[in-house]
Amino acid sequence: MPDFSFTEEQELFRKTVREFCEKEIEPRAREIDEKAEIPDVVIKGMAKLGLMGIMVSSEYGGSEADAVTAAIAAEEIARADISCATAVYYLVQAGWSYIFDKYGKPEWKEEILPKLTKGEAWVGIATTEPGGGSDLAGMKTTMKKVDGKWILNGEKAYISGVREALKYGGVHMTLVKTAPELGHRGMTFVALPIKGTKGIETSLFEDMGRMGISTGAFKMDNVEVDEKWIVGELNRGFYYAMEGFNVARVFVAAACVGAAEKALEIGMEYIKQRTAFGVPIAKYEGIQFNLADQATKLEAAKLLVYRAAWAVDQFYKGKMKVSDVNKYVAMAKLVAPLWAFDLIKDVMIWHGAYGYTKECPLEMGLRGVMSYCIGAEGAQNIMRIIIGRELLGREYMPYK
Amino acid sequence: MPDFSFTEEQELFRKTVREFCEKEIEPRAREIDEKAEIPDVVIKGMAKLGLMGIMVSSEYGGSEADAVTAAIAAEEIARADISCATAVYYLVQAGWSYIFDKYGKPEWKEEILPKLTKGEAWVGIATTEPGGGSDLAGMKTTMKKVDGKWILNGEKAYISGVREALKYGGVHMTLVKTAPELGHRGMTFVALPIKGTKGIETSLFEDMGRMGISTGAFKMDNVEVDEKWIVGELNRGFYYAMEGFNVARVFVAAACVGAAEKALEIGMEYIKQRTAFGVPIAKYEGIQFNLADQATKLEAAKLLVYRAAWAVDQFYKGKMKVSDVNKYVAMAKLVAPLWAFDLIKDVMIWHGAYGYTKECPLEMGLRGVMSYCIGAEGAQNIMRIIIGRELLGREYMPYK
Amino acid sequence: MPDFSFTEEQELFRKTVREFCEKEIEPRAREIDEKAEIPDVVIKGMAKLGLMGIMVSSEYGGSEADAVTAAIAAEEIARADISCATAVYYLVQAGWSYIFDKYGKPEWKEEILPKLTKGEAWVGIATTEPGGGSDLAGMKTTMKKVDGKWILNGEKAYISGVREALKYGGVHMTLVKTAPELGHRGMTFVALPIKGTKGIETSLFEDMGRMGISTGAFKMDNVEVDEKWIVGELNRGFYYAMEGFNVARVFVAAACVGAAEKALEIGMEYIKQRTAFGVPIAKYEGIQFNLADQATKLEAAKLLVYRAAWAVDQFYKGKMKVSDVNKYVAMAKLVAPLWAFDLIKDVMIWHGAYGYTKECPLEMGLRGVMSYCIGAEGAQNIMRIIIGRELLGREYMPYK
Amino acid sequence: MPDFSFTEEQELFRKTVREFCEKEIEPRAREIDEKAEIPDVVIKGMAKLGLMGIMVSSEYGGSEADAVTAAIAAEEIARADISCATAVYYLVQAGWSYIFDKYGKPEWKEEILPKLTKGEAWVGIATTEPGGGSDLAGMKTTMKKVDGKWILNGEKAYISGVREALKYGGVHMTLVKTAPELGHRGMTFVALPIKGTKGIETSLFEDMGRMGISTGAFKMDNVEVDEKWIVGELNRGFYYAMEGFNVARVFVAAACVGAAEKALEIGMEYIKQRTAFGVPIAKYEGIQFNLADQATKLEAAKLLVYRAAWAVDQFYKGKMKVSDVNKYVAMAKLVAPLWAFDLIKDVMIWHGAYGYTKECPLEMGLRGVMSYCIGAEGAQNIMRIIIGRELLGREYMPYK
Repeated sequence: MPDFSFTEEQELFRKTVREFCEKEIEPRAREIDEKAEIPDVVIKGMAKLGLMGIMVSSEYGGSEADAVTAAIAAEEIARADISCATAVYYLVQAGWSYIFDKYGKPEWKEEILPKLTKGEAWVGIATTEPGGGSDLAGMKTTMKKVDGKWILNGEKAYISGVREALKYGGVHMTLVKTAPELGHRGMTFVALPIKGTKGIETSLFEDMGRMGISTGAFKMDNVEVDEKWIVGELNRGFYYAMEGFNVARVFVAAACVGAAEKALEIGMEYIKQRTAFGVPIAKYEGIQFNLADQATKLEAAKLLVYRAAWAVDQFYKGKMKVSDVNKYVAMAKLVAPLWAFDLIKDVMIWHGAYGYTKECPLEMGLRGVMSYCIGAEGAQNIMRIIIGRELLGREYMPYK
Repeated sequence: MPDFSFTEEQELFRKTVREFCEKEIEPRAREIDEKAEIPDVVIKGMAKLGLMGIMVSSEYGGSEADAVTAAIAAEEIARADISCATAVYYLVQAGWSYIFDKYGKPEWKEEILPKLTKGEAWVGIATTEPGGGSDLAGMKTTMKKVDGKWILNGEKAYISGVREALKYGGVHMTLVKTAPELGHRGMTFVALPIKGTKGIETSLFEDMGRMGISTGAFKMDNVEVDEKWIVGELNRGFYYAMEGFNVARVFVAAACVGAAEKALEIGMEYIKQRTAFGVPIAKYEGIQFNLADQATKLEAAKLLVYRAAWAVDQFYKGKMKVSDVNKYVAMAKLVAPLWAFDLIKDVMIWHGAYGYTKECPLEMGLRGVMSYCIGAEGAQNIMRIIIGRELLGREYMPYK
Repeated sequence: MPDFSFTEEQELFRKTVREFCEKEIEPRAREIDEKAEIPDVVIKGMAKLGLMGIMVSSEYGGSEADAVTAAIAAEEIARADISCATAVYYLVQAGWSYIFDKYGKPEWKEEILPKLTKGEAWVGIATTEPGGGSDLAGMKTTMKKVDGKWILNGEKAYISGVREALKYGGVHMTLVKTAPELGHRGMTFVALPIKGTKGIETSLFEDMGRMGISTGAFKMDNVEVDEKWIVGELNRGFYYAMEGFNVARVFVAAACVGAAEKALEIGMEYIKQRTAFGVPIAKYEGIQFNLADQATKLEAAKLLVYRAAWAVDQFYKGKMKVSDVNKYVAMAKLVAPLWAFDLIKDVMIWHGAYGYTKECPLEMGLRGVMSYCIGAEGAQNIMRIIIGRELLGREYMPYK
Repeated sequence: MPDFSFTEEQELFRKTVREFCEKEIEPRAREIDEKAEIPDVVIKGMAKLGLMGIMVSSEYGGSEADAVTAAIAAEEIARADISCATAVYYLVQAGWSYIFDKYGKPEWKEEILPKLTKGEAWVGIATTEPGGGSDLAGMKTTMKKVDGKWILNGEKAYISGVREALKYGGVHMTLVKTAPELGHRGMTFVALPIKGTKGIETSLFEDMGRMGISTGAFKMDNVEVDEKWIVGELNRGFYYAMEGFNVARVFVAAACVGAAEKALEIGMEYIKQRTAFGVPIAKYEGIQFNLADQATKLEAAKLLVYRAAWAVDQFYKGKMKVSDVNKYVAMAKLVAPLWAFDLIKDVMIWHGAYGYTKECPLEMGLRGVMSYCIGAEGAQNIMRIIIGRELLGREYMPYK
């Protein structure tokens, strides 16, 4: 029409998720940051609401949600845990379990997905390697047939959920080269269980923020691959990954919007209460105009995010070209983290010295959203390359 | 839903308007800037398409368009004449003829509106006075009963369409004080014909841009007011003005988006053609990433604009509170001009020295959009005050 | 002349400080952040170089350095510990020991300053109270004569060096109201030893960053003040504080520049080494142009910082009006933290996921510099108020 | 030292220039814009002050000024004519007459330079061609020996001062290819008189701004070159051009600073006078904080500009490497135009609708400074490439 409202059903879903988040997640947000772990009660609670693997088909206990609905949950979860750790837990699984469900082998899905939707397994993504993130063509991990068996060698790094996978089991959707000479056309996706698999050695990084979800690495030393782990067709992995990124990026952007919204609410509450020179500091134009600018950009980011989610849904209904989806998703992923970060920074500034302490939740938000400015499901410059490519045409890609 | 697509009817309308604009307006855009006049063929053509007073009721020949549809036309017209002059002509009339139609006296509307919808009369707005724009409470123009007659005294300045009103006739919706002691509650709207009215003296300003539409002033020296000129109720003028501003601001923002879109298209075409160091400059990341950033912000602005238009329509359907409409409109009007200006500036930079000449249309766009950064239907800081007020509550308005 | 070079003596001083910092501080920077303490070897080493209380007169073991020289040290120390903790340790003491030396009672200085310059005492500043930072007039701490004795009551919060003062002894230059009815003209500075003083209760905050230096609070419950603790004249404390702020703000800004310079160096090294798509990422315009923009702003900030330091020195030579010094200092303090923060953020983005881990020092820098964006020796909006006041005149101060 | 003050001599020079500018240029600034010509009285007056060809040696009537002094004049002239037209007239000549003087043939200099320093000849620069500006290697103009004579063929476009050269005579320092196969090492500089030379055909562009100085093009059709026109050594032209650009870019940046300073002064005066809601709008934080931010960036830009001028002087004294000069100059040229433009835009916004009219000088400033954002002595992206090259090393130049 265009119609900028959500359906009643979506509003009801948001309300339900928010109530859960305010009750179960928000009071634990600082604890999640400090203990660097999301309590089981949170994960199980999300599972009960149907949030774990939210796009997975119902036969595996999934909610078969569309992307708009899944984005609503990402936004709400990040509102409650502005460190974004819980949102990362949710959204990585949401995006990649969808791809696993769509392309994975039934016998492997039957093992993993019902656990996932109960909050008892992890499904993540592993494309990045120590040498670099954005340059997938530069990947070194290979999968080769040796004596009739697929054997993995290589290393993945900066991977979300390594600790979680060791705790819960599950799989990392791991991108490997099966025909290195073919570049993008020679990559395969493996739904790799890193827990208990022979030849895998894991390690962990300590991050600046979103402490509740781990970042780690795993080395694969002659890991023998069960055929059922192979996702979809051989040599189609790059394309599955791109598809999954489009989905997951929407949720990343939605989480940034959620964290920023919460920060803005915290900030508005604070500037109404806090006085300086005898009046609430909300009344100072210096702060109020900054609020107006930041709130406007946040609304703009939110519109980009839901437009991207809607585009993903339109794509799956056959109503939108992939190039448009790519563009809309990249736009949302480009600005949502940067604008959210900037907003949270300014709201911290309104708080003065208190905003810098760990008594105030904002600093968790700043540290958390920074991870999305840096990368996570695609670096900012990759978004710019996608946008440029879809606007100008592939023949104008830089350095090609 | 949300649904980010336009209806088939809206798409068809856009197509029709674009075809007209590309045929009749775009080739004349430089001429409009240089001769400082919009040719009759353009105005009559727009009237034929139902664009003049587009929201006016059908009994006066209007299209009874909703705000989304009217915004589409504003966007398309500004695409064709990126100086924004033709868009100003269109949108000032669109917004204020709607208010005139809604609240004006039937006998006066019967005279003016049928001419307007044929492109043969002007309907504008006159609130600003020499001493200031945003501070309506500081207005000095008064309307007093003297010997049973309403008498106007005062001066309006920086008024769009003074030359046009002298040429075509029509009215300026003129805000005056009828009960100065009551502030906002003591203002009245007068649909004042400045052509041929005794006691009115007009003058013109020379502007930096959007030359095709005039900016002028008029002094009222004991002007006798016909009762039928009085719009709606006495002392309700401020509220009618606020209502009209919400409508007109959406169109201003839509025009900025249209001009920026055109600039971006011109820029993309140029950077594909122009080579430096042997390759099309589109392939340089320095330019392409700037394009990606600017295109993203433009999409964000466009979403804000159509959300605001949709909000206006929802408001008139009784489905949205006025405070939400105010906020959404102010957000669109806050960023659309500034981001459009910045985009056009950057696209000019891509063009190098050629972009600075009058052979290239971009400089008209920069000059034109600057008028909307400065003010036009409300200054940027007024938008910030509205946003802050709707977010924080009226009790936190600065300096109150 | 202008002359933008440093003297040979200054260059030699910088070289000496840098050598020390690279040898003793830089390798311990992560440890300082993790253990939340600056090792004695660092403090003693700085003392040996004459950096502790660097502007203090030689009779107390000080270096009698001018502000430019002291700024050089601040910049170098922050380069080595980009968390800025060590720089805060240095600069708070540098600024406030100078004021203590200039206005304090000889018998008290003789006790404290020789220890300070040996790295065996702390001298800090305590103006902020729980209710607010910038609004000094709103302070509630009072000092009243009771039975011929000065008695303190109140609370100071968000005070640097509380843990350090408890460890080393020393004083906090504590601003109190002695004639509350006189506003700014009724405040007095007390060089208050919080260690061992009866009636003082301390607590600590946990901060987002610059962990090596503590932030705390102390309550004063009928604290009896020794006459010698009173700094300078009664009721002149506000003016001494303003003088000290001008000095300390220069060093804050210099520290931000130092941290940003180091981040830029780390970043340049990294983008030369790291390849993507077969080439060093330094060669991508997307990164290199960002580097050019950030490096330029850093140079601009550095010039503002040394101009401010020079202005302070000119002021003490009687060659510059205080209003100019205020303006120059506020300009440096306004942009140096914000631009440094933005630079470090972008350099982190160049690093991808690695930049987000604690293996990379940058995240310490981002967390540390954030404290200066928020406040620390004066919030950003206070800087804007000062600049506005000095440019427009006191009669145009907002809300007055 | 560093010493951020000017010498007494420099201050006196500034005062003298300012007095002249305020008396002779400022009152004519609008006329210069409207008539698109700088009156003779202005040019002769500048010549009398020694400003024409200010760096030229005294034997030709020049002032032998250093770059700092020449930058002072550029700043002052732009303050008086914020359209920057007069500043362009001054600075193009200042930079390129210096190069002509340094490398030109004595018999040709004797003819041209004494006239120039009297304000009776034009000396300009001609490197750009219709196909592109920044890519000098892509130049197509050639100079070939034919029957013992040097013959020019080609076209130069977007050249400042074509109309002026036709009026006054003089030369354009024209870069041509004498050994096309050698790239940068095969270019030669020709001091070409376009007035009265056979085979030259000129044309003019109409620009967006700085109307007082023309932009034009000239075609060379078998133009016979007098040997004395050849500047310095054959095939060294590129290097002379780079040297000249470093000098001229400093003055461009200085002119932007001057125009912005004037705009800020106009703005401060205005916001003190103009009231809204009963108080001077200077008192609103929304405006005053914007002023503080803009004034700070302007000071930062000014410091970069004079540091660059000082670097040029240091270079000529043999005290600075060319790579440092390149970097410092590029930094000044990168930000001064962009920040000046942004400042003028904001000051116009303070003025409301009046700021958009031609009654207010600001719009001339915005139009004029835009030419420097776009290019003029080097595009912004070229500045970024230079800065990147000098920071990272030539081996990291993009696309090489």
